[in-house]
Amino acid sequence: MERLGVKIVVIGGGTGSFTLLSGLKHYTNRLTALVNMVDDGGSTGQLRDELGVLPPGDVRQCLVALSESPKVRELFNYRFEEGSLAGHAFGNLFITALEKLTGNFAEAVDTAAEVLRVQGQVVPATLDNVRLTMTWPDQRVVLSGERVIDVDHFVHDPRKATLSLTPMPQANPAAIAAIREADLVVIAPGDLYTSIGPILVADGFGEALKTTAAKVVYVCNLVTKQGQTEGFTVVDHAQEIERFVGAPVLDVVLFSGHRPQATLLEKYAKKGEFWVEKGQRPSWRPQYNMLAGQFLADEMAKKRAGDPLAAHRSFIRHDADKVARALMKVYFS
Amino acid sequence: MERLGVKIVVIGGGTGSFTLLSGLKHYTNRLTALVNMVDDGGSTGQLRDELGVLPPGDVRQCLVALSESPKVRELFNYRFEEGSLAGHAFGNLFITALEKLTGNFAEAVDTAAEVLRVQGQVVPATLDNVRLTMTWPDQRVVLSGERVIDVDHFVHDPRKATLSLTPMPQANPAAIAAIREADLVVIAPGDLYTSIGPILVADGFGEALKTTAAKVVYVCNLVTKQGQTEGFTVVDHAQEIERFVGAPVLDVVLFSGHRPQATLLEKYAKKGEFWVEKGQRPSWRPQYNMLAGQFLADEMAKKRAGDPLAAHRSFIRHDADKVARALMKVYFS
Repeated sequence: MERLGVKIVVIGGGTGSFTLLSGLKHYTNRLTALVNMVDDGGSTGQLRDELGVLPPGDVRQCLVALSESPKVRELFNYRFEEGSLAGHAFGNLFITALEKLTGNFAEAVDTAAEVLRVQGQVVPATLDNVRLTMTWPDQRVVLSGERVIDVDHFVHDPRKATLSLTPMPQANPAAIAAIREADLVVIAPGDLYTSIGPILVADGFGEALKTTAAKVVYVCNLVTKQGQTEGFTVVDHAQEIERFVGAPVLDVVLFSGHRPQATLLEKYAKKGEFWVEKGQRPSWRPQYNMLAGQFLADEMAKKRAGDPLAAHRSFIRHDADKVARALMKVYFS
Repeated sequence: MERLGVKIVVIGGGTGSFTLLSGLKHYTNRLTALVNMVDDGGSTGQLRDELGVLPPGDVRQCLVALSESPKVRELFNYRFEEGSLAGHAFGNLFITALEKLTGNFAEAVDTAAEVLRVQGQVVPATLDNVRLTMTWPDQRVVLSGERVIDVDHFVHDPRKATLSLTPMPQANPAAIAAIREADLVVIAPGDLYTSIGPILVADGFGEALKTTAAKVVYVCNLVTKQGQTEGFTVVDHAQEIERFVGAPVLDVVLFSGHRPQATLLEKYAKKGEFWVEKGQRPSWRPQYNMLAGQFLADEMAKKRAGDPLAAHRSFIRHDADKVARALMKVYFS
């Protein structure tokens, strides 16, 4: 199929972005993946700690999603299993080596994109070296670092917390420009406090989202995150998104109108993860459209051979093509 | 300049091969770098020890020599300087990750060649996992491992030693085919006992060199190796080459007809490295031609900006273009 030239920006970085990008790339050749830069866990965290580089992990996932070179994308997601390299994804080492060589993360990402034959572009939200902080001012509680916050079981309501980046970064001008010039902006499903929020709270992004002529769509998470968003409805998620942005920017919230089977939900419940119910839109925020979509992936889906996303984090997940079609429908309506 | 289709095979692996390939690639687009597979020191040795892979280091150098992508070749030679990755050349990690991913070293080399836009081909001498051994049968002395032999100061005459690979490998059929089909075979300058010899002693190579219709040329080292080849003349080097092969295969031996300045030679003498004198061809081996060439690099040569060969090992070295022209002249005579 011939691809359109619709300019779509996907905001996120992790698995949710990967799915959206993998689906949307079949319908447009002007995709921009806008990636959070706060990851400091795992292979990425080790590289940041030891080499002082910017976080390559989420950028790598988005590059891989947009790659049209099956061999190289598989290589980029390859993880060493033994020895002193154990745990490192090869693509992280690729981006890190290039950054050390050129002293320029953006150039490193562009070269990786070239080698991976990426259709579209991957843009870091900022090129400053920042860490994520979550503060409950009333409680005098501060959580520092993405890897810390990511696994924390919040003892206070996260909706009362302030998410911030230290030091306060400059937004990457290319990221702001992409939002301004977009035809459609999609906020991907993903961890509210460690993946999506860290982009939205950075200076410049709120303003860009407010002023862009593009429709802004949020694709809501399917299940809650243990210890962090338990009990959150779709409306709660959307409300947090707009709190991060500091303005009512959402035009459409896409959520799943289909529930998975009860047995699968029970399996998730045992892990402390629950289905995100629709919830009640507050009377003071009626503007955005809530659209129920049919985009659950086949629960029985097996990993496809050569699928570069080595470990699907769950079996309740978005189907890349179904959600992409739902988004294209939003764009055309 | 339009390049010729002359099929030239360069046998070696280290700096000498790098120089020859860098020069010859301007005159032909059908170069084959035939690479020894015994390195087990440094970054390569660590990867072999920890991950059980085949040695990527010399293959990487030859790939870089034949690369037509300046950016990626610089990346391949980039060495991490800090943290747990310190010492690893990025290209080694690239080849290693691909080998682990595909289980196929030859395929890994081919993919690396694609990414580097290599003109020509790089062919490992064997695809078996072997270690180098040097044995003095009369003395009951055995040295095991390339990294051990490489730094050894021999206490017995190396010309009495047997060089062997353990376990005895199968020659890579592609390597044998390249020699058989070549128009010109060049044995590169390099360490006799740890770089060139380990290819020539492997089963199949002697036979291929004996039966190929190509001229076989040896480009002799310029200086001796401390503790290993002190006092060796050009004739001594050539004699060892033919002892490894087990047959009088050389048609031409190229050596430098120009000596460097005395001050430079003194600097080398202090490191135990001495100019290789021509020596006297033995009466029982008159067949090969000894050609004096003018291919010393400018002694004052500085590293060029972006030169991927990070550390020139010496300042007495071959000029890539001069030696390439000398070789093309041999081919055409």
